Amino acid sequence: MSKLVDMNINDFLEELASNSPAPGGGSVAALSGALGTALSSMVCNLTIGKENYEDVQDEINDTLEKSEKLRIKLTKLVDEDTNAFNDVMKAFKMPKETEQQKEERKKAIQNGYKIAAKVPIDTATKCEEILDIAMVVAKKGNKNSITDVAVSALMAQAGVKSAILNVKINLGSIKDEEFVKTTTFRINEIQKNTDQKTNQIMNIVESSL
Amino acid sequence: MSKLVDMNINDFLEELASNSPAPGGGSVAALSGALGTALSSMVCNLTIGKENYEDVQDEINDTLEKSEKLRIKLTKLVDEDTNAFNDVMKAFKMPKETEQQKEERKKAIQNGYKIAAKVPIDTATKCEEILDIAMVVAKKGNKNSITDVAVSALMAQAGVKSAILNVKINLGSIKDEEFVKTTTFRINEIQKNTDQKTNQIMNIVESSL
Repeated sequence: MSKLVDMNINDFLEELASNSPAPGGGSVAALSGALGTALSSMVCNLTIGKENYEDVQDEINDTLEKSEKLRIKLTKLVDEDTNAFNDVMKAFKMPKETEQQKEERKKAIQNGYKIAAKVPIDTATKCEEILDIAMVVAKKGNKNSITDVAVSALMAQAGVKSAILNVKINLGSIKDEEFVKTTTFRINEIQKNTDQKTNQIMNIVESSL
Repeated sequence: MSKLVDMNINDFLEELASNSPAPGGGSVAALSGALGTALSSMVCNLTIGKENYEDVQDEINDTLEKSEKLRIKLTKLVDEDTNAFNDVMKAFKMPKETEQQKEERKKAIQNGYKIAAKVPIDTATKCEEILDIAMVVAKKGNKNSITDVAVSALMAQAGVKSAILNVKINLGSIKDEEFVKTTTFRINEIQKNTDQKTNQIMNIVESSL
């Protein structure tokens, strides 16, 4: 199958707006994160080799490397989310004539929902990591691009919130209580950290505007 | 010049991450809005012709039309923001040998900053309008896609916040006090409305998860 991220932006938006449920909010969450990391990477690149930033070159180079790794991962998650959704739909279409078929179908659906929950957990986790990167860039990076760091953080925050909603909707269909419990704990933790970190970054940005 | 929205997503992300300040946060703000409208359009499309939604067909059709108009406008703003930024950079490179040249350059820079502020005001205005659409869709649209409506609203909110930061950074360089005053009033109003509407939509979504 051709990849979503190989589509041009206009065509992707058309596909998103169409009457097919995938790609949907989960892929947009990952794309929001990818846009966020790209902006942090940009500000790193605009700091490297610049006058008045000699002291932070090693830290910024290191931060850029982390940011680019995250960007590659989040770009992959755009497609992974849509694939996971389609796999759940496929499981629903499995035959359910015999008892054995019914059992296999049920297992495939439950397994599908777990993967469809795990992908946005991954997206939320990676989006939270962007905020650690944006924090360094807000403090040490090129001051001329401070609003780009803020937009990086805002896209990461929107990515976390969007991904978490996609986890929650899938949790509603998962019968493994232990999985639901540990996942709920995890997403609440990510949400709390995200809000704190985003506020900190926005305060740094607002004070230098 | 070829348009940013004709690039594939991967290449756009590479270009965004590169050591060139444009495209930057302003174009990402508009893209965030375009992604938001696309998701609201999708949920409209997933409601049209569906059983149990007979009573809302006219309203949803009308909402889809508005959403798609917004999507086209926001897609254009992705490129307009980058062009406006590049025009400011061009103005700075104008000759400044004679008094007349200095005067013309100063005028071009001031004019450039005003346009570079007006484009994200437009982005913020259009992103706020997405929330009116998402509100209708959250109340009347296909309940199976309720998280997609929430992501639509979150992307619109991130678009507003990001656009407003891009307005503010340009206002800092504009000497026309009346322009600065009326624009500041306008962006504060958009920000307030956006937060209220987003919270309302998220409450509707959370109560049906």
